[in-house]
Amino acid sequence: MSRKFNFSAGPAALPDEVLQQARDEMLDWHGEGLSIMEMSHRSDAFVSVATQAEQDLRELMGIPDNYRVLFLQGGATSQFAMVPLNLLGGRDSADYINTGIWSKKAIQEAGRYATARIAASTESAGFTRVPSQDELDLDPSAAYVHYTPNETIGGVEFGYVPETGEVPLVADMSSTILSRPCDVSRFGLIYAGAQKNIGPAGLTVVIVRDDLLGRAAASAPTMFDYQVHAEADSMNNTPPTFGWYLAGLVFQWLKRQGGVEAMEAINRRKADKLYGYIDGSDFYANPIDAGSRSWMNVPFTLADSALDKLFLEQADAAGLLNLKGHRSVGGMRASLYNAVPEAAVDALIDFMREFEKSNG
Amino acid sequence: MSRKFNFSAGPAALPDEVLQQARDEMLDWHGEGLSIMEMSHRSDAFVSVATQAEQDLRELMGIPDNYRVLFLQGGATSQFAMVPLNLLGGRDSADYINTGIWSKKAIQEAGRYATARIAASTESAGFTRVPSQDELDLDPSAAYVHYTPNETIGGVEFGYVPETGEVPLVADMSSTILSRPCDVSRFGLIYAGAQKNIGPAGLTVVIVRDDLLGRAAASAPTMFDYQVHAEADSMNNTPPTFGWYLAGLVFQWLKRQGGVEAMEAINRRKADKLYGYIDGSDFYANPIDAGSRSWMNVPFTLADSALDKLFLEQADAAGLLNLKGHRSVGGMRASLYNAVPEAAVDALIDFMREFEKSNG
Repeated sequence: MSRKFNFSAGPAALPDEVLQQARDEMLDWHGEGLSIMEMSHRSDAFVSVATQAEQDLRELMGIPDNYRVLFLQGGATSQFAMVPLNLLGGRDSADYINTGIWSKKAIQEAGRYATARIAASTESAGFTRVPSQDELDLDPSAAYVHYTPNETIGGVEFGYVPETGEVPLVADMSSTILSRPCDVSRFGLIYAGAQKNIGPAGLTVVIVRDDLLGRAAASAPTMFDYQVHAEADSMNNTPPTFGWYLAGLVFQWLKRQGGVEAMEAINRRKADKLYGYIDGSDFYANPIDAGSRSWMNVPFTLADSALDKLFLEQADAAGLLNLKGHRSVGGMRASLYNAVPEAAVDALIDFMREFEKSNG
Repeated sequence: MSRKFNFSAGPAALPDEVLQQARDEMLDWHGEGLSIMEMSHRSDAFVSVATQAEQDLRELMGIPDNYRVLFLQGGATSQFAMVPLNLLGGRDSADYINTGIWSKKAIQEAGRYATARIAASTESAGFTRVPSQDELDLDPSAAYVHYTPNETIGGVEFGYVPETGEVPLVADMSSTILSRPCDVSRFGLIYAGAQKNIGPAGLTVVIVRDDLLGRAAASAPTMFDYQVHAEADSMNNTPPTFGWYLAGLVFQWLKRQGGVEAMEAINRRKADKLYGYIDGSDFYANPIDAGSRSWMNVPFTLADSALDKLFLEQADAAGLLNLKGHRSVGGMRASLYNAVPEAAVDALIDFMREFEKSNG
């Protein structure tokens, strides 16, 4: 067995220690004689795992007591509908900030239920930056303001939390949650698909301020009502138990690393190294404004795109996996989530330097 | 490590061989240098796993070409809404057969979108049997007929497939799928939460006849539109990749056992043994009519319910896990899904005999 460096944008790398523990416990969880996957979600053993995971996430993110943490299914894509179906509360308009492909998907789905008003868009700039606070044209009567703190495909990221006054702020944090400290009290609702910084695909974490519960539209499926899940401690029906368990292992791993403060330092260093190398090279380029660059997803291009295929083949052979850019944008993309070690970034830069020497 | 016999109703036992393979591949899938959980769902490796799983399920169940197989999230509980949201097709009524707790949940959710007309109910008989074909009062203009072939909690099961003429038949097969052969062509739509006979919780399999696609209500979330998932080969968004992979391992295990014909023989033998022992005892009882007894979920009571606690403690100590009945009905329940070996039933009967001797 030989583990390689995995730069996948998601489902993405998980910490070796977490996978080792899951492997070792796979057939017999804590001497109980069965797998965690084979347990009733209502068993004492699983409930203890689930409760601990929530407590650890609350501790890691400093989630205030007036927020509920939900462990759901359906991905961020389900949240694109669940947010308007729960937060419109009789209003007919919500504000959206458009910074790329994931923002647009959220806007498109919300538009099926209400006016998804564009409070700001950087589309005319090719999504190479995020808007500043001054550029946000916010409607004070909006039901909520939605934004995407980090665009996984475009590689742009907000360096600040938008100020929205009394209007609840909603964030799709799928690709940036837990990468650094975050003041949850600034948000009405945070959601994140697990498959980047939390755990395996099929789990979605929602953190919602309790005054926003109980407002679901009459047409919303019961499973799309946050209140139902909050009242049932995310066990209205059988939750994705293995994903929840694995997320709990990741949270414990994060605590052992020193929490999100420690991750911030490491993630900043990883990103600075890679952007620094790219900027110092004439062979590689990243198109994003310096102040809007994502720490988690670093897209880059080669001076000659005819070399893309060779780059990917040789990277793969060197044990640097999944560097191909998203099919909608091409080029390369290195995703540097929490579980991607600094050694992976060092190895990538070494490889890029050698590749430039041979082909530049 | 010592594996015990697990009679959980769900999430339920998985085959040892499947868990062993998942364990062995956990950190390095087929020499690729990463876990199956860490791969993009669009990678060649994962797509091959996903495609093979569908092919194997099609082979096992003999699914005709004009049916689509979807690998979704949200559990059967989401299907309770997704079925009416997709199959009403402008009609205002659907027929439901009420045979227990899961039927009632489906009826309740459907009632939010249309008239959920009761075509038959055995509630007055305490749900101790299923209705016969003659008792079905079917509306020929219904959008569809919904039933629950096996009630996981009540332990009643249909020994026949209802004849519904031109009206599409919809079945919640969560706790009976793959337990024996099934003529899929009799159905318009079959759905099943994975966590009983397919794989881990968090995956839902839907088998839908293609003429029923493309009819979703305008109000349905995009993620609740079967057509969207069918067009995207269940990859409209990131699917629950680990669950899909594990389901594929279960399908391969089933093929090695001889397929659903072989499982039918084993499952019939397991159920016959346990019901036979219960019927021959004055100490244990099962309340279900002989012709409606579930092969998968066998509820039973002790002559003196004051002994329930002792029974469960001693069973647990004997390595017979999760025999407690559902909280809504009490007593005991032994779930005998495909992954529960015949040896588990033998051990259970031996234990029950000894317990009766000591306490009868």
